[in-house]
Amino acid sequence: MRDSLACASARLRVCRYNKAVSMKTIYVGCQLKYYVHTPTSFLLNISAAMNDFQRICNERIEVTPDQPLEQCQVGPLGNRLFRLIGQPGPLSIGYQAEVELRSAAVDSNNVGESNYSSLPPEVLIFLNPSRYCESDKLNRFAMNEFGWLLPGYSRVTAICNWTFDHLTYTPGSTGPSTTACDVLLQRAGVCRDYAHVAISLCRAMGIPARYVAGYAVHLQPPDFHGFFEAFLDGRWFLFDATRMAPVGGFVRIGTGRDAADVAFATLVGAAESVEMSVWANDSDSFGGGPGPDDVRSGLSSA
Amino acid sequence: MRDSLACASARLRVCRYNKAVSMKTIYVGCQLKYYVHTPTSFLLNISAAMNDFQRICNERIEVTPDQPLEQCQVGPLGNRLFRLIGQPGPLSIGYQAEVELRSAAVDSNNVGESNYSSLPPEVLIFLNPSRYCESDKLNRFAMNEFGWLLPGYSRVTAICNWTFDHLTYTPGSTGPSTTACDVLLQRAGVCRDYAHVAISLCRAMGIPARYVAGYAVHLQPPDFHGFFEAFLDGRWFLFDATRMAPVGGFVRIGTGRDAADVAFATLVGAAESVEMSVWANDSDSFGGGPGPDDVRSGLSSA
Amino acid sequence: MRDSLACASARLRVCRYNKAVSMKTIYVGCQLKYYVHTPTSFLLNISAAMNDFQRICNERIEVTPDQPLEQCQVGPLGNRLFRLIGQPGPLSIGYQAEVELRSAAVDSNNVGESNYSSLPPEVLIFLNPSRYCESDKLNRFAMNEFGWLLPGYSRVTAICNWTFDHLTYTPGSTGPSTTACDVLLQRAGVCRDYAHVAISLCRAMGIPARYVAGYAVHLQPPDFHGFFEAFLDGRWFLFDATRMAPVGGFVRIGTGRDAADVAFATLVGAAESVEMSVWANDSDSFGGGPGPDDVRSGLSSA
Amino acid sequence: MRDSLACASARLRVCRYNKAVSMKTIYVGCQLKYYVHTPTSFLLNISAAMNDFQRICNERIEVTPDQPLEQCQVGPLGNRLFRLIGQPGPLSIGYQAEVELRSAAVDSNNVGESNYSSLPPEVLIFLNPSRYCESDKLNRFAMNEFGWLLPGYSRVTAICNWTFDHLTYTPGSTGPSTTACDVLLQRAGVCRDYAHVAISLCRAMGIPARYVAGYAVHLQPPDFHGFFEAFLDGRWFLFDATRMAPVGGFVRIGTGRDAADVAFATLVGAAESVEMSVWANDSDSFGGGPGPDDVRSGLSSA
Repeated sequence: MRDSLACASARLRVCRYNKAVSMKTIYVGCQLKYYVHTPTSFLLNISAAMNDFQRICNERIEVTPDQPLEQCQVGPLGNRLFRLIGQPGPLSIGYQAEVELRSAAVDSNNVGESNYSSLPPEVLIFLNPSRYCESDKLNRFAMNEFGWLLPGYSRVTAICNWTFDHLTYTPGSTGPSTTACDVLLQRAGVCRDYAHVAISLCRAMGIPARYVAGYAVHLQPPDFHGFFEAFLDGRWFLFDATRMAPVGGFVRIGTGRDAADVAFATLVGAAESVEMSVWANDSDSFGGGPGPDDVRSGLSSA
Repeated sequence: MRDSLACASARLRVCRYNKAVSMKTIYVGCQLKYYVHTPTSFLLNISAAMNDFQRICNERIEVTPDQPLEQCQVGPLGNRLFRLIGQPGPLSIGYQAEVELRSAAVDSNNVGESNYSSLPPEVLIFLNPSRYCESDKLNRFAMNEFGWLLPGYSRVTAICNWTFDHLTYTPGSTGPSTTACDVLLQRAGVCRDYAHVAISLCRAMGIPARYVAGYAVHLQPPDFHGFFEAFLDGRWFLFDATRMAPVGGFVRIGTGRDAADVAFATLVGAAESVEMSVWANDSDSFGGGPGPDDVRSGLSSA
Repeated sequence: MRDSLACASARLRVCRYNKAVSMKTIYVGCQLKYYVHTPTSFLLNISAAMNDFQRICNERIEVTPDQPLEQCQVGPLGNRLFRLIGQPGPLSIGYQAEVELRSAAVDSNNVGESNYSSLPPEVLIFLNPSRYCESDKLNRFAMNEFGWLLPGYSRVTAICNWTFDHLTYTPGSTGPSTTACDVLLQRAGVCRDYAHVAISLCRAMGIPARYVAGYAVHLQPPDFHGFFEAFLDGRWFLFDATRMAPVGGFVRIGTGRDAADVAFATLVGAAESVEMSVWANDSDSFGGGPGPDDVRSGLSSA
Repeated sequence: MRDSLACASARLRVCRYNKAVSMKTIYVGCQLKYYVHTPTSFLLNISAAMNDFQRICNERIEVTPDQPLEQCQVGPLGNRLFRLIGQPGPLSIGYQAEVELRSAAVDSNNVGESNYSSLPPEVLIFLNPSRYCESDKLNRFAMNEFGWLLPGYSRVTAICNWTFDHLTYTPGSTGPSTTACDVLLQRAGVCRDYAHVAISLCRAMGIPARYVAGYAVHLQPPDFHGFFEAFLDGRWFLFDATRMAPVGGFVRIGTGRDAADVAFATLVGAAESVEMSVWANDSDSFGGGPGPDDVRSGLSSA
């Protein structure tokens, strides 16, 4: 489950398959700078997940000052965490990866909803309400708004459209305790809130849904992004109710019941965030510069 | 993951180890009667879990009218679910098991809290807030009340004592949407609410905690019970803030983040509960009768 | 402010003006039966208010066993309360009145909204959020749904229509702590909840709104009713989002910020409600019987 | 009800009684500066209330640029509001008053609680829950914590002490929608939150309680202050759970059910606050300077 890495800046993985025509390469990364006051435990959710649709060709994580870094895999969904103990003083964490996304072409017209009795057991928990997605309170709400629509991919799209139409994207309007119900009332939020609302409405309709944290190409301003997956016809499909970035440019970091499960950084101790930058570029936009110089050079040397 | 069982009333398992002196045998079971109006999907969380501390020596599930029953294992925590489609008309589900509990003697004086940075990765999610346990709102609350206590088993005991002292056990005072925060304000609840409060306070203190649904010997009135586990010194320990039944007589059905994950029955369709009985007896009390006649005879024939 | 009445069953008032063609006579009343365990203070909000649009021609309140009854006028809105101390044993309170309503014909097309700066000072508090009407949370919600409509009577009608269309009238779906925000999420409620939602949305739009408790002709099943008033063009207008009874048949009991201010009965002590009946009939329906025999005979003797 | 004042900077009142030995003179004032973008309606709750315990000897309000100002009295509690329409550009509002407080010596040992059935009718609404004081949810909470104490002044003091002991004064921890219940969970707030918590607990115990906004001598940092009154033995008594300033130095601006009723400024339009200063000094501290020069000179010329 855990590997102690002697050196945090080691190259972590090499590409596991040959590039194919249907592949798209995305360069992602982030640079997190902290000032640590007392020894602080950091849990980081910043590395691209490894799964059938997303291959890590090249990856590098760099901690300054250099120190032991623990990588761990959490849960059945492939989230990879890094843990470290930050010592007092400045601490910088840089991550970058070259990720190959396999584009799965889907004829969404033919994607129906899975029957409850045929849902795989491991999917059932994604029907349960969670901290930020109180789907148990929204059964009549969801049924009134979406119950008359044809089941399937198009109904989840309708939920995304409703979410987009009824919320105003408003940085600063929500905080760490804001739930989908809060957002449905105040009608404003940011990406994580849009995802929580859509997830809650899906679950209330009997459609399993889960939160995905990741990188997103073309997101403005660049930041970590939150979107969601709905389980339809036996598999998970990505959706984003914010319309802020193309779903085809999403690189998954982690998956959970809601944002509580995939915070990009959890700190126990006394440290303050000093600076943060995040980037995600596809091949075309790469020339424009993927991020801070020191990190990019780290990547090209990989 | 799934086994289709041709006959629901087959004997499901035999005992996997010999009885030892430190073992205790518990007889548990339930009888659920419904009237089904339209074909209804049932998901049942009523069977004793199988794990190192709990061996199923004998188990029987009986559906009347007889029909296919699917057993599935969900998640890494060993929850075993039964699923079936109830057809219109009366439907009765009987479950019974003979369970051997291994009593683990613990010197609780020497049990400390695990350091955050040494928590096993798979335990980390049990620090996250969940639907009914909004630990993210209770950091200062928990720190004020329990921050000055010595870390360890005794601090979780203090949380249980606080919960017991500040709540009044009041059937009917809470419902399916009631959360730990609601209960902290209204100061009343039932077993699941006591567990949610204690879990929330533990998580807010940095102690991983999770919900356990089960059977409990000597519970009055007999019913399914809800209690919790806290992660201390590298393992999980059982606690019950209600003081309604001895922890040594708990038979675990399932484990989850909170009660949302282990509802004893989830129905999709139109059916109404007509009658329900639950029982749990240890060897000594067995003479008094473990439950309805038909079920007991089923057990003795096993 | 207070009159001690020697005999509770005295005839309370006589009609203060002659009937006119535009007048409509409504017969209202209720019968409340309690069993009192310990001496209990009763505060009753059951008598028709007296104001320019509503004249009490005949009124009778009867307490059995007979005992002193205190009548008090509360606040600037003409609510009339009765107070009494119930002694252990059965207690019955009967109220009935013959009320003349003056129908005010309004050309609602020409009723605009009052400008904030021209609102009378005593109306300003009805813009403030209250216990069950958290209008402060609903500014964007209200503005998104109704901000594009022409200001005035028709906009309040639109708020009523929205409320009616989005809620399902569901007895038992709400309780004494349920707020407008709760109802907006669960999409179900009873008359008081409909009023709270509409009031909240009005206030969030800058339209003063207040709760009215009363009797309503043709309400099925007969009960106390809750509706609301909005302040437009310098006066208050009655609205009812439930569409359960004609506004022209409403007899006002009391007015407040929300239902918290006009509970029909507040008890301090130990007593239980045993039976309750409420009625409201106009001249045409009177033949059908206004209520229990004993009370009606009291009225006809008046 | 309303007086249009031709000139906002007129001296508003003169002292209505001679100074007595038991009197204390307090100098209060504030200076509010805005930048107005579109014509904006201002409702200001900044002037000292006039009542038996508080006489205004000298008062001045100054609006720059000069413009019509409307003064209005709201409700039965003597709140005095100022209204004006701010035109685009800078807008400055200065208020100052010399107030004589009559110190009422009370032997708090002999102050009991009023019996419910003897509460004056106009006091009853202060038992009702309000937007920020959800006393209806806290009956068991209050009864558990304070039900065993002797009724009276000392019990309200116990409620203040509990509030002080369990909350941490934390600027920025709460916002305009934060309620007493929120604060009881998060255990942090500012003066208005302390008042809301104490008011809620009083009401839940059957003690009428209301919110008071005012000026407070010795408050650090100087600001408007929020405290509360409880109704005991037939009259209202001032309390402050924050212990931040002596109750004897409070100058009341307004009284309401909770902070929603006495916001110091309500703006309808587009304007931003640029600067704000508030001061309150007693005779002894007056030498130290009551506030900005221009305002003080205005006062001394009065």
